[in-house]
Amino acid sequence: MSRDEELLARVALTWLTEPGTWSVHRLVDRLGPAGALDLLLDGGAPEESLRATVAARSRQGDARAVAADALARAERLGARVVAPRDEEWPVRVGDLRRLVLKGGDRRVDRETAPPLCFWVRGAWPLNEAFDRAVAVVGARAATPYGLHVATEIGYGLADRDWTVVSGGAFGIDAAAHRGALNAGGLTVAVLACGVDRPYPMGNAALFDRIAETGLLISEWMPGADPLRPRFLIRNRVIAAATAGTVLVEAAARSGATQTVNRALAIGRRAMVVPGPVTSAMSVGAHEMLREQPSARLVTGVPHVLEEVGRIGADLAPPARAPQQPRDLLDDDATLVLESIPRRGAVGVDRLAARAGVDVRTALRKLSLLEELGMVRRRDDGYALATGGARSPGTAS
Amino acid sequence: MSRDEELLARVALTWLTEPGTWSVHRLVDRLGPAGALDLLLDGGAPEESLRATVAARSRQGDARAVAADALARAERLGARVVAPRDEEWPVRVGDLRRLVLKGGDRRVDRETAPPLCFWVRGAWPLNEAFDRAVAVVGARAATPYGLHVATEIGYGLADRDWTVVSGGAFGIDAAAHRGALNAGGLTVAVLACGVDRPYPMGNAALFDRIAETGLLISEWMPGADPLRPRFLIRNRVIAAATAGTVLVEAAARSGATQTVNRALAIGRRAMVVPGPVTSAMSVGAHEMLREQPSARLVTGVPHVLEEVGRIGADLAPPARAPQQPRDLLDDDATLVLESIPRRGAVGVDRLAARAGVDVRTALRKLSLLEELGMVRRRDDGYALATGGARSPGTAS
Repeated sequence: MSRDEELLARVALTWLTEPGTWSVHRLVDRLGPAGALDLLLDGGAPEESLRATVAARSRQGDARAVAADALARAERLGARVVAPRDEEWPVRVGDLRRLVLKGGDRRVDRETAPPLCFWVRGAWPLNEAFDRAVAVVGARAATPYGLHVATEIGYGLADRDWTVVSGGAFGIDAAAHRGALNAGGLTVAVLACGVDRPYPMGNAALFDRIAETGLLISEWMPGADPLRPRFLIRNRVIAAATAGTVLVEAAARSGATQTVNRALAIGRRAMVVPGPVTSAMSVGAHEMLREQPSARLVTGVPHVLEEVGRIGADLAPPARAPQQPRDLLDDDATLVLESIPRRGAVGVDRLAARAGVDVRTALRKLSLLEELGMVRRRDDGYALATGGARSPGTAS
Repeated sequence: MSRDEELLARVALTWLTEPGTWSVHRLVDRLGPAGALDLLLDGGAPEESLRATVAARSRQGDARAVAADALARAERLGARVVAPRDEEWPVRVGDLRRLVLKGGDRRVDRETAPPLCFWVRGAWPLNEAFDRAVAVVGARAATPYGLHVATEIGYGLADRDWTVVSGGAFGIDAAAHRGALNAGGLTVAVLACGVDRPYPMGNAALFDRIAETGLLISEWMPGADPLRPRFLIRNRVIAAATAGTVLVEAAARSGATQTVNRALAIGRRAMVVPGPVTSAMSVGAHEMLREQPSARLVTGVPHVLEEVGRIGADLAPPARAPQQPRDLLDDDATLVLESIPRRGAVGVDRLAARAGVDVRTALRKLSLLEELGMVRRRDDGYALATGGARSPGTAS
């Protein structure tokens, strides 16, 4: 089966049955995506409830046509779909196969299968972005204390070359993303809706900044609504794709504590920032520390690095090669390279002005960068190639 | 040996060698207090350093004479000495026999023997006061947050009939004592100096209130100075005499965390209140939670009771008998009883006025209370007997 056929089937399956559905995941294991899709569309789902879901969705449209339409729309948006056979697939999410939650009566506790595909906005290859990644999650109605701490942790992690992953929500999520952006680091928002219309709208400017320098990713196709259950289904990805999850402020029994529980259940580090016992916004954090002996109290970035660094040392080779193309560049070349926008192209005059070099130097450095495969010339100016220093993907 | 002789020897030993000295404790075990004292005074201490200490002290006075003098002074102050053979001895401090601290190079880590005696101001028998007791300790330079939490915990514990034990210091200690006093409960200050001159002076009014309704206790004789090492030596008593220790705010490596470590080392509950990670005054608390897996995060009185209540249920019969003499009293008798001051006597007219009953009723209830052994008539009016409702010692 071609990559395109497979992708189309994966997208169609996600639309037909929602991400995380175990019986679908098992069918894909057995029959491949296209075979599983055919079976489901023929009414052959192994469970009555799934048959009903498929039938209901099918009345709204032809799954393959919907998928083809979404893929076309994504291309126009500059988004891409990534599937397990792609080199950039973040393999850690496969550990969701081991995720079994106790007492899971709710759909969100039962449907925890690995994702079938990701929609992605942003240039970084997923595998690279998640290579050294920590999730920072917490309350939407965060206090100034929590916002301060989340920003500091986001900043500190990014500053030490760790990717900061969160859900793009108000409060702690946004603070963590912002901290990472302020450090000039990489941050990933894992969304529960289409990457073309990230939710909440109030964070639109933040999402734009994230898409420029980091990644917006989602299991749901462009246009998908941020339905409430989707946030909880999404949380398993935040937990699985990262080396550990840091909880900063959570009310009692919150969605963020649920992410931490998922992280623990598949052997990721669970880290919790305490707060004043007088604050309702720390009740969930303190509960977690009391009830989960494996959850570790952390007070800042050094503690977080101690936890995830250990994982890294145990399971992975040194995460970044010491010698990269960017290390070969002189100061002017670096300035020029860093003055090219993450997305889109720029003319040489503007680029020279941004970089603070004369046009002649800019042109010389641009031809060097082109030779190194870091920059490419387009009709509308110079743009980053997929690979480039402090920019996505020497690996791709 | 008479009780008086033994007491005199214990007091003399404490003065000669400072509390907590293991070699002295072992001598007392073998030879009794008087025998141990004789041996030491004859220069027969088993260690050179102890011989030097005894010789130095002996040049300042005759140990038995100093002890006799202290006992006489204590009597004038209304203080008493309590020794292990007394019924009211708080037996839990005997668990200090098991206290072995790792890496103990400092005197305070080596000299952790059980106390030889206690000097006591206040009417409650020690055993009763410590029957259901929790220590609340923490930073002197506490923040408003810490003071608030310590006061709340002191209040809540006292309100549920637990004795609040602390060290009488500024900050968290004082807040815990005050909380207990505000709840009309029992609080004990364990001092590192004479009970006649509790330190710090700035807490003098607090100490007066504690002495009236609770206890001031010390291993050091009246007049003893609050020398710095004595505070740390004292801490082992706070840890040992209580069912558990709650730490509220502590800077890194503070004396209060040392108390918690002693509590853990002899199997007491160690409880730690977290705080903002941005506060230097919570650094020691968070360190404790990270480094001591047995230390439990608590956010308030219910969590504390869960910890120490469990101990109580495991090791002790229900701590208070449901039926006590006071349960037999009618409302007027209770009013009269509760209007008698904790210390000193009161005339019947003033008593009736305080209780809000007429003098005839007051007299009738007083004779009932006398018969029940709860009140005794003195030349200067009516006073509490050693036993009385909400007052010291139905047990003695």
